[in-house]
Amino acid sequence: MGAPAAASAARKRRRDAIVIGGGLAGLSAARELERQGLSVAVLEARGRVGGRTLNRKLGGGKVVEIGGQWVGPTQDYVLALIDELGLQTFDTYIEGENIYYRDGTRTTYTGTIPPAAVPSLVEVAVTLQKLNDLAATVPPEAPWDSPNAAEFDSQTFETWKLDNMQTQEARDLLDLAIASIFAAEPRDLSLLYVLFYISCAAHDINHLIDTTGGAQESRVVGGSQQISIKMAKQLGKAVRLSSPVQTIRMKGKEAEVRSGKETWLAKRIVNTLPPALNPTIRSLPALPPGRMQLEQRVPMGTVIKCLAVYDRPFWRDAGLSGMATSNVGPAKLTYDNSPPDGSPGVLLGFIEGQEARDWLLRSPEKRKAAVIGSFERYFGPKARTELTGYMEKSWASDRWSRGCYVGFMGPGVLTGYRGVIRAPIGAMHFAGTETATSWAGYMDGAVQSGLRAAAEVKSAI
Amino acid sequence: MGAPAAASAARKRRRDAIVIGGGLAGLSAARELERQGLSVAVLEARGRVGGRTLNRKLGGGKVVEIGGQWVGPTQDYVLALIDELGLQTFDTYIEGENIYYRDGTRTTYTGTIPPAAVPSLVEVAVTLQKLNDLAATVPPEAPWDSPNAAEFDSQTFETWKLDNMQTQEARDLLDLAIASIFAAEPRDLSLLYVLFYISCAAHDINHLIDTTGGAQESRVVGGSQQISIKMAKQLGKAVRLSSPVQTIRMKGKEAEVRSGKETWLAKRIVNTLPPALNPTIRSLPALPPGRMQLEQRVPMGTVIKCLAVYDRPFWRDAGLSGMATSNVGPAKLTYDNSPPDGSPGVLLGFIEGQEARDWLLRSPEKRKAAVIGSFERYFGPKARTELTGYMEKSWASDRWSRGCYVGFMGPGVLTGYRGVIRAPIGAMHFAGTETATSWAGYMDGAVQSGLRAAAEVKSAI
Repeated sequence: MGAPAAASAARKRRRDAIVIGGGLAGLSAARELERQGLSVAVLEARGRVGGRTLNRKLGGGKVVEIGGQWVGPTQDYVLALIDELGLQTFDTYIEGENIYYRDGTRTTYTGTIPPAAVPSLVEVAVTLQKLNDLAATVPPEAPWDSPNAAEFDSQTFETWKLDNMQTQEARDLLDLAIASIFAAEPRDLSLLYVLFYISCAAHDINHLIDTTGGAQESRVVGGSQQISIKMAKQLGKAVRLSSPVQTIRMKGKEAEVRSGKETWLAKRIVNTLPPALNPTIRSLPALPPGRMQLEQRVPMGTVIKCLAVYDRPFWRDAGLSGMATSNVGPAKLTYDNSPPDGSPGVLLGFIEGQEARDWLLRSPEKRKAAVIGSFERYFGPKARTELTGYMEKSWASDRWSRGCYVGFMGPGVLTGYRGVIRAPIGAMHFAGTETATSWAGYMDGAVQSGLRAAAEVKSAI
Repeated sequence: MGAPAAASAARKRRRDAIVIGGGLAGLSAARELERQGLSVAVLEARGRVGGRTLNRKLGGGKVVEIGGQWVGPTQDYVLALIDELGLQTFDTYIEGENIYYRDGTRTTYTGTIPPAAVPSLVEVAVTLQKLNDLAATVPPEAPWDSPNAAEFDSQTFETWKLDNMQTQEARDLLDLAIASIFAAEPRDLSLLYVLFYISCAAHDINHLIDTTGGAQESRVVGGSQQISIKMAKQLGKAVRLSSPVQTIRMKGKEAEVRSGKETWLAKRIVNTLPPALNPTIRSLPALPPGRMQLEQRVPMGTVIKCLAVYDRPFWRDAGLSGMATSNVGPAKLTYDNSPPDGSPGVLLGFIEGQEARDWLLRSPEKRKAAVIGSFERYFGPKARTELTGYMEKSWASDRWSRGCYVGFMGPGVLTGYRGVIRAPIGAMHFAGTETATSWAGYMDGAVQSGLRAAAEVKSAI
């Protein structure tokens, strides 16, 4: 044994489990593993924790989120975690009138039902109920085993929509709902996958759509990234930032994980990468064919989150909630995203799905002007004249996410690859919100998946 | 400047262009670039050239292909290349009767029309004509610009099939055709993508399906991998085997490509990897969002190519061609794949699409027994009793391909990402059969794409 070999061996650090990814899934898993008395290291590619959650400073100690932010009822995993970490939530601002913008006409309304034509509203209501009824037949743990899985997974959601809705306005409203949930188009999605998603959201599509009573009900004081930041503080030096994993090598019963100049040895791995990102890691030996193929079939959605900052939320003075839904882009969906005390005022606009793909081809300046133009159409000229700051985040442009909100599935994937997405491979366990069976795609699902993977590891060691 | 830095700089090799991938696309590109007076290196991950073509030895100097193998009329690029390299082709063996096997009943027939029920045959004929008519509206260079692109790209091929075919037997025949063309299921594919593929195949789906007059008409004496082997010999030391590219770094106008311990500098890169494989390369800076997202949306098909070897092609003695089509797996499609002189006899069976995904979960022994069982049902007990050798290749299990025949597209991808698949990014040009506009998915398309990328590089340098 020469000196270099000995030095190299000395640099290998040994842990019971290595967690890949310092987002909500990975940090939840690591914390749970430590609680079980196991030693862990969390290898995070970025220079920060939080994954698809990300705070931005607004000055004066205020923050706003440029990534995932909302929580709501039945999201018991993340709500318990928030509580345990000593964080507080506050209600999403919904006071006053909402805007309904369609083909150049702006109307206002209160409550959750936009002032669309009555036949369209009826059709939307009937359609949502139909979807809930269909979703009731789809078990979130095994959607491929639902009685009509083959039929549902053979068509796009667009096909189903066209077969089941007749009015253009109702179709547009459903398109907007789909874009806001998946950051993808109805044509991109398998009907079965949409039903699975509803099933994961406590079996009600209204949970996915709604603010009050739904997934957009509450926000985290201090910003949602605080959940990860607080977990990372507890984990201390176990969290290794700027440590993208390059290689995972299985050596007998031991896994060797290389990230930059560090090499780790572990009995088990918890891999929290979205499936689409996993090919960035070289696995030796190669992963099984089903896994390598699944990873080619769970593309990330496309969203640009845009935030306009104002000294104060001027729309509130006009009796507006800041919420707008529109069939004209780029920002077709907006919210009041101000801090709890309403200072500064922040308008949030989403560019989602095809709209985002198209707008990513244009310059940031043009995009900003167009988004502010959207806000001006909904909330008046002050949206432009009183603007003090603007920020945006294209998650598709971020090499460590390559899209948001979630890795979704087109037709054929759920039935074609069944449980591959979370089936352990030797010493490797899979987590991440894509693998969740409760609130898949949400922060809650990430936490649930991390705890599930930690339980797998614990029982295997 | 210390000694290590100087030594490192000394190891950097400079070429006009670096070609990533030593398959038909990459080797064609490299040869063309050299002809234009440019210096090139071809970096190939595997220890061999040929990509998705691969010869296997049969003994006695004979070979058989375990990868892509056929060529046919209108495949002018690969036919010209074969000719130029001094290789010969020979006709696929089609003498005698074919087998049509359905639900346990075996019948024989001659010609191209199986003895299905007449209404089914009529329906198949009408359907193929409909598809050709639709494909005539889809330009292979820009399918997203076809007049009905949005409609065609919003549905799966399965949805279209169910809307347009009524008899189960006709549907089964179309399923088999789709599986044999794409190694995927009708539910996996966008209707628009299928039409694009037909359009690429000289605008006739019969070209894709047929042996004589179609894409399965001829084979290459010595095996199709010879095309790549001969090109690589001409390129000599420019071809670097066992050189998987890990990192591409853009430095001003220069690209730095790292593979193992070698570092290359180049003005231009020709990247021939299938889109689904490209995330295995770390690109610095990150690729544009549209490109990173496209790479998540072009999954590889699933096929296991199975070859049974016999001292002689015993089926020929019984007046059989060796060709069978069946609705019972695992091998639903077979060919006589013997060398030109018929010695030894080789039966080829394909396990494709869902059948392949399912059979990959079982042991090689069970799979072999089941495939020989298929052959026995079609060609009698000698398929089992006279078996002298058996080989198979699961391309989905191969880390450098992760599937075959081709990276295909589900709904929403062609219209959602338009020309991203072959749009150059700075100094990086894209080739590979997935980027072809003529015979995409075939050896011919690979060659066409390589020549097109070489022309791009030439005009850019």
